[in-house]
Amino acid sequence: MRTMNDRGSKDAKRPLRRAHVVRLMHYYHLLREWIGRGNGDTVSSSQIAEWLELDDTLVRKDLAAIGVRGCPRIGYAAAEVIDAIHKNLGFEDQHRAIVVGAGRLGGAIAAYPGFARYGLTIVGIVDNDPDKLGQDIAEHRVLPLDALPDLVRERQVDVVILTLPAEAAQDAADRAVTAGIRAIWSFAPTSISVPPEVKVRHEHLSTGFAELAYHLKQTSPEGK
Amino acid sequence: MRTMNDRGSKDAKRPLRRAHVVRLMHYYHLLREWIGRGNGDTVSSSQIAEWLELDDTLVRKDLAAIGVRGCPRIGYAAAEVIDAIHKNLGFEDQHRAIVVGAGRLGGAIAAYPGFARYGLTIVGIVDNDPDKLGQDIAEHRVLPLDALPDLVRERQVDVVILTLPAEAAQDAADRAVTAGIRAIWSFAPTSISVPPEVKVRHEHLSTGFAELAYHLKQTSPEGK
Repeated sequence: MRTMNDRGSKDAKRPLRRAHVVRLMHYYHLLREWIGRGNGDTVSSSQIAEWLELDDTLVRKDLAAIGVRGCPRIGYAAAEVIDAIHKNLGFEDQHRAIVVGAGRLGGAIAAYPGFARYGLTIVGIVDNDPDKLGQDIAEHRVLPLDALPDLVRERQVDVVILTLPAEAAQDAADRAVTAGIRAIWSFAPTSISVPPEVKVRHEHLSTGFAELAYHLKQTSPEGK
Repeated sequence: MRTMNDRGSKDAKRPLRRAHVVRLMHYYHLLREWIGRGNGDTVSSSQIAEWLELDDTLVRKDLAAIGVRGCPRIGYAAAEVIDAIHKNLGFEDQHRAIVVGAGRLGGAIAAYPGFARYGLTIVGIVDNDPDKLGQDIAEHRVLPLDALPDLVRERQVDVVILTLPAEAAQDAADRAVTAGIRAIWSFAPTSISVPPEVKVRHEHLSTGFAELAYHLKQTSPEGK
């Protein structure tokens, strides 16, 4: 429970808001690219702000909130920012996930090589389609959806990744919650209901496209 | 070119910033779910703000910027907000995309049913792997990467979706730019260089996971 004292205490940090977490991820990706391209070890808040189209005071505030401060005329040590984000967002913890849905998207996610960096390991894949059972997808034998509770216990799973059609998502989410899952990452094109202690992150693949559609609209000859 | 007069003019709107576009997409998805669940026709800025963990003044400002205003004690007409976002972000325009990379993720994207709503149609899929040529993925025959410029012209393509490994992404992006593409949606885990008039949207599948990892960290018994 949060008390009045938390506000003034340095150790009892207030939780970050959702939009803050998302911006930290943008800084993280940006700075990893920045270092990877040999741009040097430091970066200024105004450079970050310009690339991401944010205010640089917001960038400084976001970084200060996770304990990172820049130096005047030098900026931030990019590696320090990356480390701080990594630690503050919990990527040092290990998480184990089951993919629910062995379709194309489920297969793509089960095979995606980029999750290990964030402490996420895919440990199984289940589906309710009898035709898919027994197939091997990205080194995982597809098991029945009914096996989910046992898998959650046996493989110490704490995240479920839903890649099912809309009509099957709620049932799968209910099973995951009953099995004790507290985090659901849903790629299903629908909303799902869960108890308040369970976090659902809805992934809308189309959100990324919105930025491109807007750019095309702004730069098209008729759009001006 | 933007002139001083644009600032005061209602018709010559200033372009929305990237973070604003992304928030509008969050409102869009939220309100579509809201209506779909039979919650009524109106919604308040404070409800939107609470769900998305934003300030409600920001929500009101974001909506006012696209010409939507709420009524005191009633809120916003959800359908009106959805329509305004749809129109302002350019989803009424039609866009045609080629998927570059016929792997699992390319296949998942080519087969994804949710893009039509945003005016996006997948009209082809190419790959540089000879083993994949001639396969049919989501009703598209996989064609060689060399065919990209011809396809862009013949099929009036304005978006290229990269689902290649990191090492192949820059070459594919270069070919797309040479062919006249102005919008690249990249799922490749790397940065790519393009001329300033070309917009690249990098999709990091792991960004969504950050929110869940943070939730698990905040709610784990050791994390408190």
